[in-house]
Amino acid sequence: MNSTSSAGSPDLLQELRNALRQFAAERDWDQFHSPKNLAIALNVEAAELLEHFQWLSDAESAAIPPEKQIKVRQELADVLLYLVRLADKLDVDLAVAAAEKLDLNATKYPIDKARGSSKKYTEL
Amino acid sequence: MNSTSSAGSPDLLQELRNALRQFAAERDWDQFHSPKNLAIALNVEAAELLEHFQWLSDAESAAIPPEKQIKVRQELADVLLYLVRLADKLDVDLAVAAAEKLDLNATKYPIDKARGSSKKYTEL
Amino acid sequence: MNSTSSAGSPDLLQELRNALRQFAAERDWDQFHSPKNLAIALNVEAAELLEHFQWLSDAESAAIPPEKQIKVRQELADVLLYLVRLADKLDVDLAVAAAEKLDLNATKYPIDKARGSSKKYTEL
Amino acid sequence: MNSTSSAGSPDLLQELRNALRQFAAERDWDQFHSPKNLAIALNVEAAELLEHFQWLSDAESAAIPPEKQIKVRQELADVLLYLVRLADKLDVDLAVAAAEKLDLNATKYPIDKARGSSKKYTEL
Repeated sequence: MNSTSSAGSPDLLQELRNALRQFAAERDWDQFHSPKNLAIALNVEAAELLEHFQWLSDAESAAIPPEKQIKVRQELADVLLYLVRLADKLDVDLAVAAAEKLDLNATKYPIDKARGSSKKYTEL
Repeated sequence: MNSTSSAGSPDLLQELRNALRQFAAERDWDQFHSPKNLAIALNVEAAELLEHFQWLSDAESAAIPPEKQIKVRQELADVLLYLVRLADKLDVDLAVAAAEKLDLNATKYPIDKARGSSKKYTEL
Repeated sequence: MNSTSSAGSPDLLQELRNALRQFAAERDWDQFHSPKNLAIALNVEAAELLEHFQWLSDAESAAIPPEKQIKVRQELADVLLYLVRLADKLDVDLAVAAAEKLDLNATKYPIDKARGSSKKYTEL
Repeated sequence: MNSTSSAGSPDLLQELRNALRQFAAERDWDQFHSPKNLAIALNVEAAELLEHFQWLSDAESAAIPPEKQIKVRQELADVLLYLVRLADKLDVDLAVAAAEKLDLNATKYPIDKARGSSKKYTEL
């Protein structure tokens, strides 16, 4: 994946970052948005997302009923919003970071070794 | 925020989604990528991110040293990668979901009531 | 379950609480042990525990190899240690709290309604 | 700490383990209680606990109002209940594991090196 491929186009993550900056500024919330607090919020939302799949089989988790889908969708959004806000506070460009990490993962998990295996790269 | 603003332009989240699809296909990993398992992975990565801020004051969490920044950046990327992959498996358009949730948050946290307060909307 | 049944006998949770108090005092760690920080630590340890079961099937999670068992055992211990320490800082008697919650759960999940179901009590 | 000090006395953790066994058996819940699922449940409860301290300062987290204390107390209990249940399913004696881990921590964090420091043992 080319980490510069989105340059020059309207970037959704940047739009979202800007919208969240304004949202926080209007409410005087920057005082609460330390990276530590945002990382906590991210974890709380991630766990609320996980709760929807708790006790389900893998197959059931892939076929959740419509009313649950709406909630899951909102939890996914919450995770993204806090992630974008946290990255902003840490001056991290999420798009570049994700592209770099994907490249790194390709090195850690070479196709021939990783195929069909769920082992951690340290155990491959 | 206009949820359709990214239509027609190369979309970073879609690029990432496609790259992750290919990454999983090449490694025959779809068998492990149930929404339940991906939600677990998301939580594990979110906690690894949080670990970097553990025991720090809010101020310290906003001024982490360079070598820690590199790791934090990778954890942020990991969270995004699993989030994009999970949303794909659930057929959720993250961009639209985030825009909708931001609108909902604006309703739950009206500026005049929420200004300077960290209370949950149910307690405002 | 009788919440007073352990009164008068050496209580493991109290022993553990006392040992942790001494451990922190000797290292001048009380300054770091706010309930907020201890709750973060508890979450980080809980996620490290979960990581060991990530990608496993339910059956595999019930038959982990010996070298992994040792690590899982340590993560279980870490969760208990932080839980006991956090409860101490909040002046909560874990034994009484657990007995009370178990009674509450019995009310929320009556046997005839809950049998064989993994639904949340609000959906029973 | 002497890991055998509670031998011969009624052991609260064992009582709790037995009560939870009965609770699950009466509701035919063993089918859902794989270690994987219980580890998920433990994480979800730990995050619900953390949510109560979200956005609070350290000082505020040490002085939560009474109505919140009741909820926090229940979340602490939930974490303990799932922890005991998970340890049971993994055949781990939590009391022994905690005593051993505390001994290990004393080695990893020698008093003279760890005093007043929140650094991880690998960085001391």
